[in-house]
Parts: sequence; C-alpha cells; structure tokens
Amino acid sequence: MGNITAQTLKGFRDFLPRESGKRQYVQNLLKQVFESFGFEPLETPALEYEEILLGKYGDEGDKLMYRFTDQGGRRVALRYDQTVPLARVVAQYQNQLPIPFKRYQIQPVWRAENPQRGRFREFLQCDIDTVGLNSPLSDAEVIACTIKSLETLGFKNFKAIINDRTIFSDLVNNAIFKDYNLFSIIRIVDKLNKIGYEEVIDELTEKITSGDESSATSILCTLEDSKPTQNLKDIFKALEEELGISKEKYEFSPTLARGLDYYTGLIFEVEIEGYTAGSVGGGGRYDNLIGLFSKQTVPAVGFAFGFDRLIEVMDQLGLFPADLTTSQVLVTIFSKDLEQKSAEVASCLRSNNINTELWLDPQSKLDKQLKYANQKGIPFVVIIGPNEVQENKVTLKDLKNKSQQTISLDEAIQKLTL
Amino acid sequence: MGNITAQTLKGFRDFLPRESGKRQYVQNLLKQVFESFGFEPLETPALEYEEILLGKYGDEGDKLMYRFTDQGGRRVALRYDQTVPLARVVAQYQNQLPIPFKRYQIQPVWRAENPQRGRFREFLQCDIDTVGLNSPLSDAEVIACTIKSLETLGFKNFKAIINDRTIFSDLVNNAIFKDYNLFSIIRIVDKLNKIGYEEVIDELTEKITSGDESSATSILCTLEDSKPTQNLKDIFKALEEELGISKEKYEFSPTLARGLDYYTGLIFEVEIEGYTAGSVGGGGRYDNLIGLFSKQTVPAVGFAFGFDRLIEVMDQLGLFPADLTTSQVLVTIFSKDLEQKSAEVASCLRSNNINTELWLDPQSKLDKQLKYANQKGIPFVVIIGPNEVQENKVTLKDLKNKSQQTISLDEAIQKLTL
Repeated sequence: MGNITAQTLKGFRDFLPRESGKRQYVQNLLKQVFESFGFEPLETPALEYEEILLGKYGDEGDKLMYRFTDQGGRRVALRYDQTVPLARVVAQYQNQLPIPFKRYQIQPVWRAENPQRGRFREFLQCDIDTVGLNSPLSDAEVIACTIKSLETLGFKNFKAIINDRTIFSDLVNNAIFKDYNLFSIIRIVDKLNKIGYEEVIDELTEKITSGDESSATSILCTLEDSKPTQNLKDIFKALEEELGISKEKYEFSPTLARGLDYYTGLIFEVEIEGYTAGSVGGGGRYDNLIGLFSKQTVPAVGFAFGFDRLIEVMDQLGLFPADLTTSQVLVTIFSKDLEQKSAEVASCLRSNNINTELWLDPQSKLDKQLKYANQKGIPFVVIIGPNEVQENKVTLKDLKNKSQQTISLDEAIQKLTL
Repeated sequence: MGNITAQTLKGFRDFLPRESGKRQYVQNLLKQVFESFGFEPLETPALEYEEILLGKYGDEGDKLMYRFTDQGGRRVALRYDQTVPLARVVAQYQNQLPIPFKRYQIQPVWRAENPQRGRFREFLQCDIDTVGLNSPLSDAEVIACTIKSLETLGFKNFKAIINDRTIFSDLVNNAIFKDYNLFSIIRIVDKLNKIGYEEVIDELTEKITSGDESSATSILCTLEDSKPTQNLKDIFKALEEELGISKEKYEFSPTLARGLDYYTGLIFEVEIEGYTAGSVGGGGRYDNLIGLFSKQTVPAVGFAFGFDRLIEVMDQLGLFPADLTTSQVLVTIFSKDLEQKSAEVASCLRSNNINTELWLDPQSKLDKQLKYANQKGIPFVVIIGPNEVQENKVTLKDLKNKSQQTISLDEAIQKLTL
C-alpha cells in the first residue's frame, strides 16, 4: 500500500474536528430556527435516476453533474441541488404530504466545477421551502426565518435585499423595451454589485440594445425608478406588522435580479456589511418548478444559505465561540496507581454534564498530556497526584490564563460549569 | 416531463419529516454522549480516489463499491465505510493530528448490495474510534461510551457481549488444532447465535475438521471453556472500578467471534433483550488497519452502531418521544382581518422558545387548518377569533385530549412550556 498517496480529490475536503465542529455549530443553530418556524427535516438519496436530474439545470448543469452507470446498468446521477429532489418528493408522495409542505434540507451536493477559491465540488446546501401555497405571508415568513437565522448565528449588521421579479417582466411588457430578451437583461443586471454601473450599461448596450447606449441607460433607469409592487407592499407589511421584523433589516432594491431563471415573484438576497465577496444566501418565489413531475402547478417559496460562505464570514467576524472544541477539560493520569482516581473524577465530571476527556495511557508523562490538551485547545486540565489524593482535592489548571488552583472536586465542578 | 416517473432507486430511501426527525433525534443524542467522552467530529468526502478504497474490503467489497470515471478522467469511488477514510486521514494529516486521535463520524456510505429487509444501498454509519493508543483503559472507554449511548437513547435491558480475538488465535496455536484455518473457524463460530450450536458443529465438521465431528465439538468446547485473557480482565476492571459501568451491563462470551478479519484483541457486540434479529452494533481493537497508508503500525479501537437497526429497535420498544414532530403548536388564522393578531401571537410564542407554526393562508377555513395540524401530529392549536380578541384571550385546543380552554396568552405559554 506504500505507493498509494493519502490524498483527497481536487475540490473535495476533509473536515478535521475544529472545522467540522464549526459546521455542526452552524447547522444546529439553523435547524433550531427553522424548526421554531415549523419547517421540518427532509432527506433525499445522494443518487437519483439520471432522468430525474438531467436537463433540469441547463447545459452547464448536465456537464457538471456526476453521472454514471451503476452495477445494474441503470443511469444514475449524484444530487446536484435540493430543489429538483424536492419536486420529485412532492410528486411521489403527493397523497401523504401536508399542504403547505414546509421542509428544510441540509445535505451535500456534487458539481464537477473548476475548483477555485470558495468553490468546491462537494458542498453543503441548506434550504428552507414552503410548498403548495402562494400568499404574501408565506413569502414574508421565509424572509423572517432567514433574518432570525442570521441573528441567531450572531450577525448584527446585515440586510435582506428584496425585489419582485415581475418588475423585470413588466419592463419588457413596456412598449419601449418589448424587443429585448428578459432573461438576458436579468443576467446582466444581476452583475450590478460585482461589476458596477458602467460595466452593466456597457454590457446592456452591447448585448441587448445593439449598440444603443441610451436604451441601455433607459433600461437601468426604468428599473431604478420602479416602485414596490403591491405584492411587495403586502410582504413588507407582514414582515413589519405581523412578524415583528424591524425595517432596518430589509430594503427594497429594484435592481436586484438573481441569476436563476425560475423565479416568478419575490426575490431576495442577504448582504452582510463589510463583506463584499457576495451574498451569503438568496431565494424567492418559484411557482413553476416544483410541479415538474406532477401534472399540476405547485407554488413554492424558499431560501438557500451559501453554507461555506456563511462559515467564512463568521470566521472573519469572529462569530464562533472561542471553545468550540468539544472537551471542556482533560483529566490527566499522574501514574498507573492513580489511574483509578483520575477515571473516577472524569466519570463524576461527565455525570455533571461537563464534556470530559480522560487521558487513556497511564504510562505517559504529564508533560505529554498537557501538550495534548494545548494542541486540542482543551481549556482546562485536572491533575490528581499523591498530594491531591491525600488532601482529597484536585488541581484545576486553566491553560489559557496559565493559572492553577488546588481545590475540592465540587469547587472544580462549579468552576467548570460557569 | 410528464413521462418521467417520480421514483427513488432500489435500495435508496427518502426520509420524510417524521422519519428524518427520528434520525436527527438519535444522532443528536449520540453526538452528545460521544462528545462527553472527548470524541470529536470528523467528515470526509463522499468521493475518494478509487485506489484509496479498492482492495480494502475484499473481492465482495470491490464488487459492491460504486465506482466510475469522473469528468477529469480520474477513477473515483463512493465512500464504502468510514474506517478506510479514517486511515487515509491519519496518514494525510499525521503531523497535525493529536495522538490519541479520538473521532466520531456519522455519514452515509454506499454499497450496491442486493436490497432486502433492513439492507440498503445508502445507509448511515455511526463510528467512534480512538487511534494511536493501545491500553485496556482505551478499550474500556469505547465500551463505556457505547453503553452510555444506549442508556441515553432509553435502552434498559441490554448487554455488551465481550471477547478477545486472541482466544481464537490461541486455539490454533494449540497443537491439536494447529492445522485448521483461523478465519474459517471465526466465520463459522460467528454464526452461533444465528444458526445455533448443532448447525455450527455441522459446519465445523464439514468445512474444518474434514468430517471429524469430535474435533469440531472439541473446538467449540475449548472455546466455551476459555477464561478471560489478562487483557480482558484489565478491561473489565477499568469498566467496573474506573468508569463506573455496572457488571450487569457486560458479559464475557468466549464464543463471540465477529465476522471481520481485522480484529486483533478486544471484540464486542451489543445485544438488546427481546430483539433477536441481530446486534445493533459491534466493534473491537484493530491494530493493523489504520496504518494502511502510513509507514508505521497505528493501533486503534472503535465501535460502530448499526444506525438503521437502532432506529428499528427503538421504534419497536417505543423509545421515541411521542411528539418528535418539530412544531408544538399551530396558530390558526380566523379571518383575513385577524391575520395580524395571529401572526403576533405566533411571534410571541416563538420568542418564548416554543416551536410554533403559523398558518400562512388567511383564506383557509378553520377546518382545513385543524386537519393540517392533525395530519402533521402537531399537539396544540391556537385559535384567535373575534371573541378572543375582545376578551384579549386565546383559545388553546389540545388535539390529543380533544379539549380546549379560552385563556390569556400568558397562561397558554405556560401550558405550552410544561
């Protein structure tokens, strides 16, 4: 085996305990918020029949999808997103699912993208969707749940940027712009934040208005001058007056476009102040997608967090608790004949709900054990030597403050549960 | 799209909210126990280079493994278990991992097995392992953590059945049995619980002792008469005197064999009283596997829960809380003009940490809303009609007891947080 290199595939990642701990922390908090709004968990298989996924994400999607023939000769594909599987679930279990069907789903998806900073071939998606209902209140709830999620993760200065896709469709219903391609306009305006006003005008001029810069400017001005639709007014009212969301937390932005074609009404994104590398998530209403495998139209509204980006921003903003490492204390073993004493103390700490690691090798020097605690970032160490045993006490070492006290076990428990 | 059948692949499963909720419940409790012992989370990719996995699970494994060529022409394979990826991680990050490396891992694996009752092509594995250490205390800790896990899940009548693989190797070191194949004996004795004493004697007679039944009987008797090794005595001492595990919770069983070849010392399984369909998990010491991709031997001990079987037994024993559905209460909407009132009440319940679902469509009849709550198994419903508004009260309906009270919001909060 010596000639096999221990390596991961390009674009795939191991998450060692510290990173995995962060991911679990975020997932647990998000699940709590999602469930507090009545969203329930759904899990779908990693592999689907290829025909279920193929052609649902455009040519690019078909190209990036991991597809192969299984042992039984079936064409299969790895999950590419969580929305098409949701559409399949809604069709497959239509007689047993409650309507509205409010589900969250947090599972990995796979895309053979060209790996680059912040883009991976295996990444976690984190979606909430309300299926089977079209009401301003259901739209507002998804926005409210998103805002509460970010607050729960510790974000302070952020905003939900909100628009209505019908503002774009109204644009091309306008006689002046009727010859232009709606989705091309959307895809260019979507880059406004990334490439800026002038570049967008250039692109609109070149690709949409056939060199006519004044028409391009006119498109952008018309968008910028748009007022909130009645639908948006109803959503804003529900947000503020019914769901208790402060006006500071959201903003109407008539040039917000969202790249995906399938939105039919509300669209929104989240912007974190000081973080310009893009949105940590987006969503909206899409009434024509979930019915994909059914014979009827199924309205839906949802939001997806960019999980990796969320972790990245939280790291930058220092939103992770200092001691995400799972053990609060390492109980060392002074010598073989004191192993039992240490093990008893560890069991006692554990039964007081303190996450406790017991050193497992009675032959090790104390130095090695302290080094281990430091390496793992365990904040406290308990030492029980002959003196401690005689005095019926333990020595509690604070590795961060580099201080230590010899105290009773009860006192140690108190200090560790503070 | 009408001609695409909404279906999952054979052997693959969707988990709708109720089932997914059970899975999350079990995972959350297990993680808590694992972390209380200092095991930390590890995640590895679903896809690995084929050469990392190939040949590690025998011919059968190579046959059942999902393997294909990716877009970049690389041969890749889907995770088949979590032990070989752990071996890769230990080699790949050898300079940054603490020793011992205590990790847990809960991820799906994929095997193209012939689907049958309780056997799936995608299933969750749930492992704890302590890598880099060989001490009776580390063995005992894995057993103790397993026992605590089962207690935390609510199991009462269960036992860890414990043996030492060296009892089998000592057997073939015995002059009488020296010509017999160790692993063939192990694989036959492993079936003792499934097929019974006489069948095992028959198989031993036929396959091992070339028709000599008295030798076959002698093998089994020698095993049955074996006493615990010194190693096991040390482990039992650590369990009872150091880790506080009651003697009733474990048992020496010299005929326990465990099918896998790679164990080198301790082996153990968990037996649930009244559940005869097999063990809910097993483990042991395996000192020659984790070094697979390193140039040195890396000792390890671990345990894996059979996650699906665990869920099945918990279902049978009624160990899941009655209301695993995530919402505690549905706040209905009486009429469009009372939507705001209902939304405010829902927000208030939520801010009191009550998982609250707000009905999202002001056009619906109350009947439909109650039906929805019943379908989802939501135990309580709040109704705010004109009378309630006038009295500044809410009606709290208990759907299980079919009783209702009109009370103040504060009283309702109290009842819902009981």
